[in-house]
Amino acid sequence: MDDKGYMRTALQMAEATKGQTTPNPAVGAVVVKEHRVVGFGAHLRAGEAHAERHALTMAGEKAYDATIYVTLEPCSHQGRTPPCCDAIIEAGIRRVVVATMDANPKVAGNGIKKLRQAGIEVDVGVCREAAEELNQSFFHYMKTNQPYVTLKVAASIDGKIATSTGESQWITSSESRADGHVLRHQHDAILVGVNTVVADDPKLTTRLPEGGENPIRVILDHTLRTPLSAQLVTDKSAPTWIVTTKKADAHRIDEFEKNGVSVLVLKGETIEVDELLVQLSERGVTSVLVEGGGTIHDAFLRSGSFQQIVYYMAVMLIGGSHAPDAFSGMGISSLKDVPRLAVHSWEKLGSDMKMVLRKGEE
Amino acid sequence: MDDKGYMRTALQMAEATKGQTTPNPAVGAVVVKEHRVVGFGAHLRAGEAHAERHALTMAGEKAYDATIYVTLEPCSHQGRTPPCCDAIIEAGIRRVVVATMDANPKVAGNGIKKLRQAGIEVDVGVCREAAEELNQSFFHYMKTNQPYVTLKVAASIDGKIATSTGESQWITSSESRADGHVLRHQHDAILVGVNTVVADDPKLTTRLPEGGENPIRVILDHTLRTPLSAQLVTDKSAPTWIVTTKKADAHRIDEFEKNGVSVLVLKGETIEVDELLVQLSERGVTSVLVEGGGTIHDAFLRSGSFQQIVYYMAVMLIGGSHAPDAFSGMGISSLKDVPRLAVHSWEKLGSDMKMVLRKGEE
Amino acid sequence: MDDKGYMRTALQMAEATKGQTTPNPAVGAVVVKEHRVVGFGAHLRAGEAHAERHALTMAGEKAYDATIYVTLEPCSHQGRTPPCCDAIIEAGIRRVVVATMDANPKVAGNGIKKLRQAGIEVDVGVCREAAEELNQSFFHYMKTNQPYVTLKVAASIDGKIATSTGESQWITSSESRADGHVLRHQHDAILVGVNTVVADDPKLTTRLPEGGENPIRVILDHTLRTPLSAQLVTDKSAPTWIVTTKKADAHRIDEFEKNGVSVLVLKGETIEVDELLVQLSERGVTSVLVEGGGTIHDAFLRSGSFQQIVYYMAVMLIGGSHAPDAFSGMGISSLKDVPRLAVHSWEKLGSDMKMVLRKGEE
Amino acid sequence: MDDKGYMRTALQMAEATKGQTTPNPAVGAVVVKEHRVVGFGAHLRAGEAHAERHALTMAGEKAYDATIYVTLEPCSHQGRTPPCCDAIIEAGIRRVVVATMDANPKVAGNGIKKLRQAGIEVDVGVCREAAEELNQSFFHYMKTNQPYVTLKVAASIDGKIATSTGESQWITSSESRADGHVLRHQHDAILVGVNTVVADDPKLTTRLPEGGENPIRVILDHTLRTPLSAQLVTDKSAPTWIVTTKKADAHRIDEFEKNGVSVLVLKGETIEVDELLVQLSERGVTSVLVEGGGTIHDAFLRSGSFQQIVYYMAVMLIGGSHAPDAFSGMGISSLKDVPRLAVHSWEKLGSDMKMVLRKGEE
Ligand SMILES: [Zn+2]
Ligand SMILES: [Zn+2]
Ligand SMILES: [Zn+2]
Ligand SMILES: [Zn+2]
Repeated sequence: MDDKGYMRTALQMAEATKGQTTPNPAVGAVVVKEHRVVGFGAHLRAGEAHAERHALTMAGEKAYDATIYVTLEPCSHQGRTPPCCDAIIEAGIRRVVVATMDANPKVAGNGIKKLRQAGIEVDVGVCREAAEELNQSFFHYMKTNQPYVTLKVAASIDGKIATSTGESQWITSSESRADGHVLRHQHDAILVGVNTVVADDPKLTTRLPEGGENPIRVILDHTLRTPLSAQLVTDKSAPTWIVTTKKADAHRIDEFEKNGVSVLVLKGETIEVDELLVQLSERGVTSVLVEGGGTIHDAFLRSGSFQQIVYYMAVMLIGGSHAPDAFSGMGISSLKDVPRLAVHSWEKLGSDMKMVLRKGEE
Repeated sequence: MDDKGYMRTALQMAEATKGQTTPNPAVGAVVVKEHRVVGFGAHLRAGEAHAERHALTMAGEKAYDATIYVTLEPCSHQGRTPPCCDAIIEAGIRRVVVATMDANPKVAGNGIKKLRQAGIEVDVGVCREAAEELNQSFFHYMKTNQPYVTLKVAASIDGKIATSTGESQWITSSESRADGHVLRHQHDAILVGVNTVVADDPKLTTRLPEGGENPIRVILDHTLRTPLSAQLVTDKSAPTWIVTTKKADAHRIDEFEKNGVSVLVLKGETIEVDELLVQLSERGVTSVLVEGGGTIHDAFLRSGSFQQIVYYMAVMLIGGSHAPDAFSGMGISSLKDVPRLAVHSWEKLGSDMKMVLRKGEE
Repeated sequence: MDDKGYMRTALQMAEATKGQTTPNPAVGAVVVKEHRVVGFGAHLRAGEAHAERHALTMAGEKAYDATIYVTLEPCSHQGRTPPCCDAIIEAGIRRVVVATMDANPKVAGNGIKKLRQAGIEVDVGVCREAAEELNQSFFHYMKTNQPYVTLKVAASIDGKIATSTGESQWITSSESRADGHVLRHQHDAILVGVNTVVADDPKLTTRLPEGGENPIRVILDHTLRTPLSAQLVTDKSAPTWIVTTKKADAHRIDEFEKNGVSVLVLKGETIEVDELLVQLSERGVTSVLVEGGGTIHDAFLRSGSFQQIVYYMAVMLIGGSHAPDAFSGMGISSLKDVPRLAVHSWEKLGSDMKMVLRKGEE
Repeated sequence: MDDKGYMRTALQMAEATKGQTTPNPAVGAVVVKEHRVVGFGAHLRAGEAHAERHALTMAGEKAYDATIYVTLEPCSHQGRTPPCCDAIIEAGIRRVVVATMDANPKVAGNGIKKLRQAGIEVDVGVCREAAEELNQSFFHYMKTNQPYVTLKVAASIDGKIATSTGESQWITSSESRADGHVLRHQHDAILVGVNTVVADDPKLTTRLPEGGENPIRVILDHTLRTPLSAQLVTDKSAPTWIVTTKKADAHRIDEFEKNGVSVLVLKGETIEVDELLVQLSERGVTSVLVEGGGTIHDAFLRSGSFQQIVYYMAVMLIGGSHAPDAFSGMGISSLKDVPRLAVHSWEKLGSDMKMVLRKGEE
């Protein structure tokens, strides 16, 4: 195995931890001495050991004179755990291979510099693209201080999420629905409109075969119509935040707070997407999965405040001008304002097609 | 080159003539003697020589003791031209290789039988699948006596054909639009609703770089609202048929007829898709391209009366519950009634995605 | 179908005639008017009509104002048939689409010029690469005045063409052997050493299912040891030429000539590949398929006088330092003299692997 | 990530350790709880902790009620380390996912049985094929009690390993040579003939960028001609074994032994491959890389005592009946005795082609 092979192994381990490390990125590490792996590691949870620590621990004394492969530049500053650069230097590592630099522009390059000053050979850029793709929401957050927003859509080819009589169950296949739960596992927060809460009383939890991380559940509800009996209020399986406006009744706010639900009151009488994202960012949310309904999707589309759309397209046509649209509400009135999208990937998923669309790519 | 190679050559020639032979199928033929091609031919226009004739003419005396590759079983009955089987026998052909049998169940196999009775070796089935795909609308028509119906859709990912303010120009790319003109070239008739005529005053002609076959233009118009000044009425670039009901004013019917427009009056007060297709079939229409608008598409979708959907999907999201849908009208109310579709092919076409959906496939 | 589609059709037709037009190239033509094909043609045999003629004949009056697609620049000079440019101009063709220019540097561009002077629109370069690949041996001959030399090898992975006890039958699969007959069909001459004649008494004819063009059979025999009873001398199924040296007995030369075998006496006492190729070229041979044995292959390898190697590799290992080599004789002594080869293509063929190697490519 | 995803991660880790665990197989393990990875592990060296131990150690208390993914059935018997099944049961693991069963027929299934008896859910067969490919030499050894034999060949297309004047340096590309060192890293022993030792005085060590595992160096030398000054005797970089026969001089044997070289004296006067492999097997060698020269390769070919051939084919033709062959010696005299081979994979590697051939596959 060569540099790329070891880095791909570290990336594969990091990939397996995607969704469980927030607000930290997923990171993997492999320590290799004389072409023998002597340590594997990955960051498993914020506040716990970094990937490098785990790998160096497994390697023990064999780390001396060895090479460490890390998917992200080792940290050089004291965080909740001591800096990995120090651990690498202390262990006597001879060479560090890094996939990509730290996403935080304030500290990017500092770790590499520190390691080089300690006489360690550092190579940067092995499998860079895959490493950036792995943590793209983290990178976005670090660069913009805004959460990474993914819109999730499950619709027919003609853009319908239900029939005109409201039938919507099982439009997409079980494979797509399972994949949607992976998205929940990988996002800090999930966001829906109050209409969805009233209509469906959803749980918005991650229901993978073995469970999964439940995201913070965010309800957009400018007049605070959410029922106190909603599962999101009562089930306590994950934090629930209601975003509302000054139209909300103060007494009702208290009731929610008493029930353990946080209520965020925005300044105006309507919920502006930009203001919302600033509020979420300030509360440490690095990624948001927007699950609709149609008017919420439409609001994000119109504001341009999203990075990615994961579109599960069922191979069916439903038709009907009154059948609910994936993006309803006002829509974009002029084609020149339509955001520029690119198909990042598309694949068959069960009986559906899954498309990942990204903004601003060529 | 082996049997498959020669048959593929014949198929390629037939493919090049697709759209110009109606109501006949596209057929190609190659005559080979001692591994030398001695004749190429294809059927070029109904009423003119069949593919075999052209190829035998080019071969001349060299056809004696040669092999002929034909993409469709040679005809054995007198039509507008004498039977090809006779020509093959007279020419002294030793072996006939056929891709697929005649589509007409009444005569299928007769040509092969006749050739074999004349002592000619006949092999059937070389490249059969490609030969059937080539002439699938013809095969459908022969088997069902109904025209092959293709719905053509050009929409955004979310199923919109225009913004809420009606902007619709250039949603799809120039490559998709050119491909759409190939569809017109390849169908006998093109069908739109009167609303489209009133709103856009379209020509519905085939505008490929070198022109192309104009389909018969069919307008669904149950109250005969089509303006007499519409281009479809005045431009004479192709026949125009208006399909209407007994609600239509007799005097106005006369006026259209005077202008060279045929008016088909159906029995009831509404246009039923099934009755419509019977009428078209009786007038020799073997294939229909339905170009919308949304309510027309919806009617065909609901009736299930279509074989294929060619969907040009622009990589954009428009949104808006009032933005026009690709399939508007009533839609299908219950998911159990949604027709079973399969993705026959999908590809990138310019900046769009082109999907071909077929009914009833696995 | 667009320009590329029509040109690919013309190329496919030309491909089907490969091997039957020598010393002329394979050429195909399609005439299209208003998106309808009105004529197909290909050059079928030297001395007969060119591709353009056939296509224009089929088109008749419909050629007026039409476009013709030709895989090679139309000829402008009187040959065995009158110039195609004149025919195109007379037919009233409006546009000519050409894949690639004439290979003969003396006349290249003349046809295009003449057509343009007649006011015809000419587009050059559509599918150029495929058109050059199609006639690459012709292009080579026109540019260098030397025949295009293909070495054909059928050997085990370790380069053996027989076991140490001489077993060589069926090393390669029936698919490879059939493909080898296609090579014979496509070359003007086939060349073997006298040892092969003495050992195997081969026919060297083309035995495809429907026969095929037999190449001129060339025997390298510097002392004129070929038996008068050899099939190559007696069977008359194709011309046989023996290339010999002044070591040959004059009386024996007479005997061969009486038997209808041409004897070419080279100047020296050994057969030099370069001199040989000049002689073949002067006799109009544009392409030679060298079938071995090992010392003949080796001589061509060492002289560098070849353009292509078609290598059928059986997935077996035979071993043995005395088992006959595909390239035996002296071999190349220094690695710096080894000719630079590139893998033009490789594919599975039956149970073998087929590699096409070309000289001088990157 | 689903079952397959986690197992692929474990396999990727095991792949990275390939070559460092002998005589044990490479094994990887991942512990997952509620869709969070809580432990990664792999077996790093024989005698040290098994993969499951490492993963459970990293998981700590989180292993309770978790799932463990292991690429090989957990061991149930006391070896140099205590049985992994016990550790899994003690840790409170709820579910075990296994890629493939133990290769040793005597114990295969015992681990699974033990786990199930302890009430643990066990799923077997996830990514089985990849798991078997990963450790195929180990599986072979366990089933047959014979080392897995790989013949490594680097030759020209025509099977030559040097020119007739003996030039052999750099026939294959640097990429192929590096890949050859990966093979050394992954085999227990490397085997050459004494002629190679005399001619080249090789080291036969693994020279990857970061070093690598040096295999035991085995010299076949039936008269004990190996020079005492050979690097294989003097450099001590890895064990060297000389395999000889009773023709060997006893005094000379002593001298080698004094120099730390083991001498294995076979029974007869020649070295029989079968006897050799039994001897190697008894000394714990599970895999052998045969690097030649030609007569050694030929001996293994003729005896049929090999499982795999890794063939680096330089895109060149050298020619010459006296240029050394990849498989020289006697070779196989009759085609019916040629071993049945299949192309397991082929790929471009640098400027060469790399083929992996396997015996006995369809
Ligand atoms: Zn760190
Ligand atoms: Zn006919
Ligand atoms: Zn010409
Ligand atoms: Zn164990």
